[in-house]
Amino acid sequence: MKNKKAVVLMSGGMDSAVTTAIAIHKGFQVFALHLNYGQRTQYREKKAFSDLVKYFGISELLEVDVSYFSQIGNSSLTDKKIEITTSLQISSSDTQCSNEIPSSYVPFRNGNILAIATSWAETINANAIFIGAMQLDYSGYPDCRREFFDAFEQAINLGTKPETKLKIITPIINFTKKDVVLKGKQLGVPFELTWSCYKDEDKACGVCDSCLLRLRGFEQARIIDPIKYKK
Amino acid sequence: MKNKKAVVLMSGGMDSAVTTAIAIHKGFQVFALHLNYGQRTQYREKKAFSDLVKYFGISELLEVDVSYFSQIGNSSLTDKKIEITTSLQISSSDTQCSNEIPSSYVPFRNGNILAIATSWAETINANAIFIGAMQLDYSGYPDCRREFFDAFEQAINLGTKPETKLKIITPIINFTKKDVVLKGKQLGVPFELTWSCYKDEDKACGVCDSCLLRLRGFEQARIIDPIKYKK
Repeated sequence: MKNKKAVVLMSGGMDSAVTTAIAIHKGFQVFALHLNYGQRTQYREKKAFSDLVKYFGISELLEVDVSYFSQIGNSSLTDKKIEITTSLQISSSDTQCSNEIPSSYVPFRNGNILAIATSWAETINANAIFIGAMQLDYSGYPDCRREFFDAFEQAINLGTKPETKLKIITPIINFTKKDVVLKGKQLGVPFELTWSCYKDEDKACGVCDSCLLRLRGFEQARIIDPIKYKK
Repeated sequence: MKNKKAVVLMSGGMDSAVTTAIAIHKGFQVFALHLNYGQRTQYREKKAFSDLVKYFGISELLEVDVSYFSQIGNSSLTDKKIEITTSLQISSSDTQCSNEIPSSYVPFRNGNILAIATSWAETINANAIFIGAMQLDYSGYPDCRREFFDAFEQAINLGTKPETKLKIITPIINFTKKDVVLKGKQLGVPFELTWSCYKDEDKACGVCDSCLLRLRGFEQARIIDPIKYKK
């Protein structure tokens, strides 16, 4: 019987799918947390999330609406008035991380995500929170760096009950997209169920930054991406 | 012209009303953040919030729905199935703080609140976040202690843009309710517009813990509470 519990952030993208597989591989019972923050591809990502939890046999799910990000604005992912920048410097919808601080920046997004995860984690007496952040590919987002997660972990442990001891585990923090693909392959992650495109919901567009990063990762890993692209 | 900006958490209760008055007194332009988290007295608190911002002449407002707390549950304030405990150990709706960890505990609530405040604060280039937490009266809540706020401030400054420098200011952290009443009196806070009861929305019940704490504060300050009570 599994006695370690973890809240795992699952967007439906491949970074968090690989992170989930790692959590399971480490023996954690996974409590899957999915956020709808008013992003363009919300429904497609939710389908990917549903498909993935079914695949992994995860029965403890929580979906939280954080569309207040749209209210706060200042983000091309949530504010449809701002055009999406299309260069490789821009974030994937999965990790919000980039080499520069891009137009799709939602300020302190991971801070909000971790706060929600902490509330749930304390309620269910979890031992850990897993998040698929990557600081190498995406160093432009300050809240994707391990030093941020260390500081937040400290805040969690001062701001929760004495018996609550939560670790923030970032198993792919130093991965490249190529590493993500290789690790996923090794652990049997069903990449065909994941979704990365933040422009379209039918076939992936193949030209947004998230698609480009994904495709480059597969190419470098010399593995064929199983999902369908428009071009 | 004011060039210092602060996001101020305003629940509609007297602790945050006094905190707002202090922020204004210190020369900050106030951006008022109000949260609806599915609490029983949500509409009455929102009215108090509206009355207070009008009184203070605050024009920058953000209301955020955080009813996901109800989903996470584990709280008598948000889960109507759990009966509210009625002893003085229990929190006010204003600060969620107590001498013991009570049934109304929403895990890591202040962590969530501060994360939302941070997202807004970074968007508007604010210098500070004000929160009316009190660690003396309410030491049962770990996320009401100054050491928690220090740790969270550290996480904020590691997780936001390099040019963002945010202070978490807790001006009444070491106040008792009596001190809150006296400070409010000194700064001309309109206590008649505030709402503390978390049981009723017409006249305050006078018997819930939040009412009892409020009434005791006024009594100790030898000032008459201007709001109407049922008994």
